[in-house]
Amino acid sequence: MNEPGSRTAPAARAGAGIAFGVDIGGTKVLGVALDAGDRLVGEARVATPQSAAESSGPPGGREHHNGEVGADVADAVAQVVAELGSLPVASGSGVGPPVGVGVPGMLDRHGVLIFSPNLQGAAGADFMGLLTTRLPEGSLVVENDANCAALAESVLGAAKGADHVLLVTLGTGIGGGVVAGGRVLVGACGFAGEIGHMVVDPSGPPCPCGRRGCWERYASGGGLGRLAREAAYAGRLHEVLALAGGDPEMVRGEHVTRAALDGEPGALGVMGELGWWVAVGLANLAAVLDPSRIVLGGGLVEAGEILLEPTRKAFSELVEGTAARPSIEIVPAALGERAGAVGAALAARAGGLWYPVC
Amino acid sequence: MNEPGSRTAPAARAGAGIAFGVDIGGTKVLGVALDAGDRLVGEARVATPQSAAESSGPPGGREHHNGEVGADVADAVAQVVAELGSLPVASGSGVGPPVGVGVPGMLDRHGVLIFSPNLQGAAGADFMGLLTTRLPEGSLVVENDANCAALAESVLGAAKGADHVLLVTLGTGIGGGVVAGGRVLVGACGFAGEIGHMVVDPSGPPCPCGRRGCWERYASGGGLGRLAREAAYAGRLHEVLALAGGDPEMVRGEHVTRAALDGEPGALGVMGELGWWVAVGLANLAAVLDPSRIVLGGGLVEAGEILLEPTRKAFSELVEGTAARPSIEIVPAALGERAGAVGAALAARAGGLWYPVC
Repeated sequence: MNEPGSRTAPAARAGAGIAFGVDIGGTKVLGVALDAGDRLVGEARVATPQSAAESSGPPGGREHHNGEVGADVADAVAQVVAELGSLPVASGSGVGPPVGVGVPGMLDRHGVLIFSPNLQGAAGADFMGLLTTRLPEGSLVVENDANCAALAESVLGAAKGADHVLLVTLGTGIGGGVVAGGRVLVGACGFAGEIGHMVVDPSGPPCPCGRRGCWERYASGGGLGRLAREAAYAGRLHEVLALAGGDPEMVRGEHVTRAALDGEPGALGVMGELGWWVAVGLANLAAVLDPSRIVLGGGLVEAGEILLEPTRKAFSELVEGTAARPSIEIVPAALGERAGAVGAALAARAGGLWYPVC
Repeated sequence: MNEPGSRTAPAARAGAGIAFGVDIGGTKVLGVALDAGDRLVGEARVATPQSAAESSGPPGGREHHNGEVGADVADAVAQVVAELGSLPVASGSGVGPPVGVGVPGMLDRHGVLIFSPNLQGAAGADFMGLLTTRLPEGSLVVENDANCAALAESVLGAAKGADHVLLVTLGTGIGGGVVAGGRVLVGACGFAGEIGHMVVDPSGPPCPCGRRGCWERYASGGGLGRLAREAAYAGRLHEVLALAGGDPEMVRGEHVTRAALDGEPGALGVMGELGWWVAVGLANLAAVLDPSRIVLGGGLVEAGEILLEPTRKAFSELVEGTAARPSIEIVPAALGERAGAVGAALAARAGGLWYPVC
């Protein structure tokens, strides 16, 4: 398409330098198109197939069932890519732009999802294989979603220019990605950054991953709900309880966030507890990784300063050597729900994150 | 010294390719000389000045006092280097071989020890400055001791050839070093790898670092003593109690190790508890870092399989996605007490570990 004498100047021709990124989330599959200057030039989304979030049913039928769910999810990705591909910016050459796909969970280097607490129905699915047959010819990379988000925030977002970055997404669960020395830390098998499953209290509540007291049980949307219900039963959340219809068991994280934004002291207290638990994990990770900047993303961070302020305060008390060391900035993510998809597009353009051996 | 016609052939001349490494430990300052082929060709040691391990006394006198302690420690390092320098292998050219010095604690990129729970008396000391004036002219690097040990084990020791390595030293406290993608993970300020101060139980016992329930409170020599005293008070350690003169408060880790090596069931039970706590932290770190190999060093590991076997068993149950992921080998360190010094020598030859910005 770039023959001498072509009517389209190379720099301006449709599709030049375009990359697509798709992020498979618990509720939606979100795709973006980035141009050669990393500007967002397109977006598409579909709902995540409901089967994907469910567990895989009784033992025995697991493999077959998960293969079907993986195929449903891959169909959804293909649908998003087709929508992006119909944009006027996309290549019409027959060979599609590079496509990166971010998947929540532990992916091996061949693109097989080997473990995924938050996309249980698709565990075992060979996403690389499923997607290769569904997408136009072109380079495809399949990567962990949070690793993609960390790349995006460090290249284009809230940690632009920082070489040592910890990204933590506080949503239904906790996702994480680490940039060390300017590179995404992928580990020996590509499983690095599974920070939500640090045990921070071995006698704590059970976690779907099989352990007890994982950080994700405390410092996530689910953790906020649990802290809130405890406070409601203890009689410390009158207004929140009213929002939940008077039943402590019906109290949800969003009730607390709403009441805290209205200045309700009991709700602010629960947000403070949540911030303390967020800080416990961040301080642990800071001791191990020594980042210069921590980026907090995910739905919980939309609460803003009512969560960030107590988190920063507790972190400054908990981080090792706090009085002597340079402080570590804790900032909200800049790319919002698109971080994973943007990072997947960047990874696709680069030919993948960096996988050594496994 | 390498003029044409010299009587000494270049490859055989004294000092060619030699590097010195010195490790400042809690009880001894240990130095090694490595030849160009990384073979150990010399060793020297002196006792660590006692003042170094003590806390720095009342506030106010801190800076002056620590300056003196730092000077004492630097004198000890200089004494070790002088002994190494008097070896026949060392250079006689006036310019000394490269010297690397490993220091326990958080060193900033200028070689100042900003925080050190296990060398409290020397906190604040400018080791780079103190050593520059005491050592022969030549290249000097000052690095964290456990980062040096991780380098040594990954280049020459139990993780030779592995690109993603976690080194954990279980001694009085816990030290750590991480190799990711073939490079030592130093972090933004050089403080990465402070793994002993991950909080694994926020309501646990207080730690000298100021927090509660650090991993080091459980999975170290001190932690073993505490687990053992709890078991003794609970009446589960009759033989160990006899070794300690009948007073539960006098039970020490070494009593338990000795009794466990003799096959005493109560003592083996305590070693199993210790292994479980070791595994909790290793599983946390594996989730974050995804190493292909974990190397355990430090005095506790000299107990051998009575600790390693329960550690491996608990780790395989605790690590995320255990059934699906490739297993992570847990192996004892190969370089023993010399790992830090050997790694410091390697770092000196390379011009330092890799420091980006801070």
